[in-house]
Amino acid sequence: MAKTINVGLLGSGFMGRAHANAYNQVNHFFELAYKPVLKACYGRAQNIERLKAFQRMWGFESIETDWKKLILRDDIGLIDVAAPNFLHRGMVIAAAEAGKIIVCEKPLAMNLREAAEMAEAVEKAGVANMVMFNYRRMPAVALFKQLVLEGRTGRPFHYRALYNQDYTISQSVPLGGPLWRLDAGAAGSGVTGDLLAHSIDTAEWINGPIAKVTAHTEIFVKERPHAETGKMEAVTIDDACMFLAVFENGSTGTFESTRYARGRKNYNTMELNGEKGAAYFNLEEPEYLQFFRYADPGTGKKIEDHLTGWQRILVTSREHPYMDKYWVPGATIGYEHTFINSIADFFKSLDGGPPFQPDIKAALRTQEVCDAVLRSAKEGRWVRLSGAGQP
Amino acid sequence: MAKTINVGLLGSGFMGRAHANAYNQVNHFFELAYKPVLKACYGRAQNIERLKAFQRMWGFESIETDWKKLILRDDIGLIDVAAPNFLHRGMVIAAAEAGKIIVCEKPLAMNLREAAEMAEAVEKAGVANMVMFNYRRMPAVALFKQLVLEGRTGRPFHYRALYNQDYTISQSVPLGGPLWRLDAGAAGSGVTGDLLAHSIDTAEWINGPIAKVTAHTEIFVKERPHAETGKMEAVTIDDACMFLAVFENGSTGTFESTRYARGRKNYNTMELNGEKGAAYFNLEEPEYLQFFRYADPGTGKKIEDHLTGWQRILVTSREHPYMDKYWVPGATIGYEHTFINSIADFFKSLDGGPPFQPDIKAALRTQEVCDAVLRSAKEGRWVRLSGAGQP
Amino acid sequence: MAKTINVGLLGSGFMGRAHANAYNQVNHFFELAYKPVLKACYGRAQNIERLKAFQRMWGFESIETDWKKLILRDDIGLIDVAAPNFLHRGMVIAAAEAGKIIVCEKPLAMNLREAAEMAEAVEKAGVANMVMFNYRRMPAVALFKQLVLEGRTGRPFHYRALYNQDYTISQSVPLGGPLWRLDAGAAGSGVTGDLLAHSIDTAEWINGPIAKVTAHTEIFVKERPHAETGKMEAVTIDDACMFLAVFENGSTGTFESTRYARGRKNYNTMELNGEKGAAYFNLEEPEYLQFFRYADPGTGKKIEDHLTGWQRILVTSREHPYMDKYWVPGATIGYEHTFINSIADFFKSLDGGPPFQPDIKAALRTQEVCDAVLRSAKEGRWVRLSGAGQP
Amino acid sequence: MAKTINVGLLGSGFMGRAHANAYNQVNHFFELAYKPVLKACYGRAQNIERLKAFQRMWGFESIETDWKKLILRDDIGLIDVAAPNFLHRGMVIAAAEAGKIIVCEKPLAMNLREAAEMAEAVEKAGVANMVMFNYRRMPAVALFKQLVLEGRTGRPFHYRALYNQDYTISQSVPLGGPLWRLDAGAAGSGVTGDLLAHSIDTAEWINGPIAKVTAHTEIFVKERPHAETGKMEAVTIDDACMFLAVFENGSTGTFESTRYARGRKNYNTMELNGEKGAAYFNLEEPEYLQFFRYADPGTGKKIEDHLTGWQRILVTSREHPYMDKYWVPGATIGYEHTFINSIADFFKSLDGGPPFQPDIKAALRTQEVCDAVLRSAKEGRWVRLSGAGQP
Repeated sequence: MAKTINVGLLGSGFMGRAHANAYNQVNHFFELAYKPVLKACYGRAQNIERLKAFQRMWGFESIETDWKKLILRDDIGLIDVAAPNFLHRGMVIAAAEAGKIIVCEKPLAMNLREAAEMAEAVEKAGVANMVMFNYRRMPAVALFKQLVLEGRTGRPFHYRALYNQDYTISQSVPLGGPLWRLDAGAAGSGVTGDLLAHSIDTAEWINGPIAKVTAHTEIFVKERPHAETGKMEAVTIDDACMFLAVFENGSTGTFESTRYARGRKNYNTMELNGEKGAAYFNLEEPEYLQFFRYADPGTGKKIEDHLTGWQRILVTSREHPYMDKYWVPGATIGYEHTFINSIADFFKSLDGGPPFQPDIKAALRTQEVCDAVLRSAKEGRWVRLSGAGQP
Repeated sequence: MAKTINVGLLGSGFMGRAHANAYNQVNHFFELAYKPVLKACYGRAQNIERLKAFQRMWGFESIETDWKKLILRDDIGLIDVAAPNFLHRGMVIAAAEAGKIIVCEKPLAMNLREAAEMAEAVEKAGVANMVMFNYRRMPAVALFKQLVLEGRTGRPFHYRALYNQDYTISQSVPLGGPLWRLDAGAAGSGVTGDLLAHSIDTAEWINGPIAKVTAHTEIFVKERPHAETGKMEAVTIDDACMFLAVFENGSTGTFESTRYARGRKNYNTMELNGEKGAAYFNLEEPEYLQFFRYADPGTGKKIEDHLTGWQRILVTSREHPYMDKYWVPGATIGYEHTFINSIADFFKSLDGGPPFQPDIKAALRTQEVCDAVLRSAKEGRWVRLSGAGQP
Repeated sequence: MAKTINVGLLGSGFMGRAHANAYNQVNHFFELAYKPVLKACYGRAQNIERLKAFQRMWGFESIETDWKKLILRDDIGLIDVAAPNFLHRGMVIAAAEAGKIIVCEKPLAMNLREAAEMAEAVEKAGVANMVMFNYRRMPAVALFKQLVLEGRTGRPFHYRALYNQDYTISQSVPLGGPLWRLDAGAAGSGVTGDLLAHSIDTAEWINGPIAKVTAHTEIFVKERPHAETGKMEAVTIDDACMFLAVFENGSTGTFESTRYARGRKNYNTMELNGEKGAAYFNLEEPEYLQFFRYADPGTGKKIEDHLTGWQRILVTSREHPYMDKYWVPGATIGYEHTFINSIADFFKSLDGGPPFQPDIKAALRTQEVCDAVLRSAKEGRWVRLSGAGQP
Repeated sequence: MAKTINVGLLGSGFMGRAHANAYNQVNHFFELAYKPVLKACYGRAQNIERLKAFQRMWGFESIETDWKKLILRDDIGLIDVAAPNFLHRGMVIAAAEAGKIIVCEKPLAMNLREAAEMAEAVEKAGVANMVMFNYRRMPAVALFKQLVLEGRTGRPFHYRALYNQDYTISQSVPLGGPLWRLDAGAAGSGVTGDLLAHSIDTAEWINGPIAKVTAHTEIFVKERPHAETGKMEAVTIDDACMFLAVFENGSTGTFESTRYARGRKNYNTMELNGEKGAAYFNLEEPEYLQFFRYADPGTGKKIEDHLTGWQRILVTSREHPYMDKYWVPGATIGYEHTFINSIADFFKSLDGGPPFQPDIKAALRTQEVCDAVLRSAKEGRWVRLSGAGQP
């Protein structure tokens, strides 16, 4: 029989839904020692009806409008932090102090200082923890990493990542409320924490630590109406952020993220060009990994000259990461399954499986890069990173 | 409060899983008057351990190894037929006679005669029913239909459909057992019922009734080992089937389906070329609908000449069919959601919503086309279809 | 020093231009023993100004308005037939009788009878000859053939060809005049000779002889204004033609061609699915060959499972057919170069190089298939072809 | 009758060939007042046989092994500089002083100082001149510019350009000789002058002047054998160069260029994201422009929500830039035609047509940006550009 893990979910918005779905689905696809029970979900008292609807939709046993109370409940063993960024620090530290297992949505924190405090708290408490950089567990991204580990790309020369969207171009998009991601007070930063953090997490996972960066940020719409008050307020988050990087392994990187890239909806792309091969992923066609095979990893022997070309690998077969758990070759999974895969791997780690990555310590490193990027943009100069590795 | 529908699922294989998942998920994404309760699932006694694992994985309250008994249970209101094709007829007729709501996996039957008996039984019983031609509810396919209804393609000239896979090329792939789709006794036909039935269902839904066909079928591997006995047996199902068609609206069609198309995994494609525009869908990139806009449906005015080109519409925004129920623009759903969408629409039809299509009567029509195709192939001549329309 | 070949060009329209360009360019890219001299071009007396402009543009030494006279000129050694189809027969036979080297644009003739007479005349005369099925010499198509010869596709199961365009949808497109391709009296057939002849030529070249066909043709616009008289005339050519085929090697084929495929401009595609691999070409992205590598031709060993996918080979490198003659890797050539490559290979064959294919005899075979297709469509039944091979 | 322009070509390598072809072909496709006559080509005395072969292949009347002598020949009116970069300065200045019309291959010069001297010389001499930034006249790139001018992209937010290749990854690729592009003494810079100069030229042409840059360059292979001596020599050119930019119009830019991007052959891409639309071009599929239409330029009215998507415009129709001069819709042109189009437009400008851009003055501006990029990389800081516009 599966052991139960009693889950308290802090958050009932977009991410709350994605996490709730993952807990509901994880045991349908993975054989696991653990099975989550949805004990309680938290929302603000002023949104009580929305919270109740969320509870009903996802099957939580109870609701709470005081997150501190929820964290302290004896019947809850795992705290899942899926609230806006400004709440992460308090919630994670309280959960750590209460000895709970922690799942935290990304970005870890509003800034590096907060992130460091959180990392310290969980280390002190010794609680199991993970941060939901879910794209590592998109099968095609996991295959990307696997090809690199298999030596199929060889000495790396270039890494290139975009995470571009277009949903805040209109000047009438409000700030605050459900769109707290545009509010610096709630989000900490703009695209840097929201989108670039993903790009940085996968970049360092795949290509190792970044050594230095030079960055630029931009705010295109300077004032927006506030969703709740209707008053125009200054926009202080970064609408767009781009940076050049040099990795410790000597390869170079370019990164860009924006919510003003007309035509791009969820254009999270990554490319690595190495001596023996290259790989490319684009979240707008998530079932594919593109791979350019140039030389065999073992022998170094070149592929027949007239046969080289970018392969579009349809990552839906049993031999691909995670795909043996789902349907049949050619039957795709979607966005939500990256959360399911993450929870599955985290639960396995709780049961003696491989340690889960990224945990809060690893996410602290990503926060460090984000902070260096924002500092570089602010100060108009290259910023060097500490050598701290990242698993 | 949602009213419960007590579900009995006949089948615990690939399709059983897909249906079970749909019942589990449908209320997480759709606000519905009905909520399914998974009362019982059926499997053969000799596979009892597999059946129990299936029960546990998907949360059924009980199991049955006698499907007739399951159908007659008073606590069950909806019978879902997800067993191999040769069982459909008996199960559907028994369920109809027992007055149950019926969900039936496609193809409806082994052949036209069976299908006609089933249609008669459900009509006589007057029970609500649906057939799971799930691809109609792939958002991009639903958008395809919508564009046609909006007049964006105009007078149709050509329809073109492929459903190609490559998983039975190896001569060592066995026949029977889990791969009952290669066994004529269990499947009725080969690719015709399995794959072409999908193509025909969507073709007639989108482009109206087919008037006549000329077909060819092929068996490439003549003998295969039986999965259970190991003995070589003659393959009698069609490995590949292709046909030309003329639609009642005067447009022409080409159809092809095979399990020997090396490189194609789930290559279910459809293209319509009309006077005002064209559309193309490929299940191997299911999040896209390709659309060629040539003239406006209302005015007939041509698009600026230098701007025409195939558009790749990323069908993940709130304005696209079904997508307002899921995540955010750019976040894809997968194969399994076609089943969820189908069950949602069916439940809505039970609650006074639009009548669900296709029902068993409509699927009988698809069976009629399949039979005409197979007859044409066998007799080497054009076969004309009765004018029976299809919603 | 290169030996000169004195060329007389019969035709000054679209194809006349393409051939004239080829003669001008062939020695710029290929080291050849022969060098063409553009002695004369032919046009009708009523178009004398257009003809003179053509002469000036392309550098012909003289013009003729009587093609019979041109053919008989002593200073001309090669007759290039690039006139409308209805003139091919007379021109080729006269050229053969005059002992001239013959280049003939496709389709060879208006029908099989004409083609047979032409083949007989050139055989009797023993003159060197070629037919301009230029797409064989598109580098990506030549690579397609090469991969098949290298055993990279293995036992063939399916061949699939489209040649779809959309330029005659409007009812106001006239018939006759420059658009003689819509006039049965000038063209012989519609898409069958114009487009499908290409598809059939490459299909039999790549996959061997077709054994039998069942076809359907359609005329969508029944009357059109004549370009010269303005009067409405009945359209008697085939607007669209599609057929199913069985090849002598046991594989199946589907073919379709139309000028009513809204959105498709020059959509000449071909796909072969074999046991060891598959290939796909699309003339709308002519610099690519798509290749699915499944098993090595020699050992039969499968490619690593997780690495299979369609490769988009950018056919512009020195190791690709013809591309060592042009620019640098990544620099494309265009439509016109298929003619240049054809003339280069033909001139090499005149100088002791490999015999040129297709010659008129091979084109007779293609005509035979076209005729069988049209007969099948007319008679509504399968038509079997003679076993005559095709190089 | 066309007036002749007597051409002297300085260079008989890759670019010499591309220019020679353009002169041969320009009057075949364009009706022009001028017609070039290939009077002489220049090559070094030690390569006399290669030079003679080049003369024969392309039809030059004479050869010269002293370029100064060639420039001074009275029978030559146009000097075409297609020699390695280190020769540009001397050749252009000599040609200007001799009062010749000048065509100069890009990059204009080895560095900004040289470029300024050249600009001054041609201004003083008042001779017509042009620089061969040929990609402006790729039809799809010209269409890109046209869409921007038509207001279809609107307020620009982001510009993004790559020019990536992979041909110098192997450590055994020599330096010097035919590969003078790897030799700083002959090329001035590496990818910056060779590839990025193209990206910068099109970027400023499309999106206006760059205001400031921060850059990074890299040398991956530090030593290479010299092609002529075989001795290992230090590589001093930039193997890769990337930079961030802010444009004067407030939009941001990212640029990257390398010869180490495994898998990329001629990956010259550009993307502009604006308020009303976006466009994307990739030289590896040069017949396409991708366009995302969001709102109409005039009314600002949004396209129907469910119909937006990237359009792949096949830029081969008569309504597309330059394409009315060539074949038929769907018939592609290639790399070489960008040179033909450039020469045609230049000849038109000599005959009272629109002034040709870019001329040497405009190319000086591009050189200025290149120099700023290299300086930024060297000094590790942002570099601001003078406001000098660029037509």
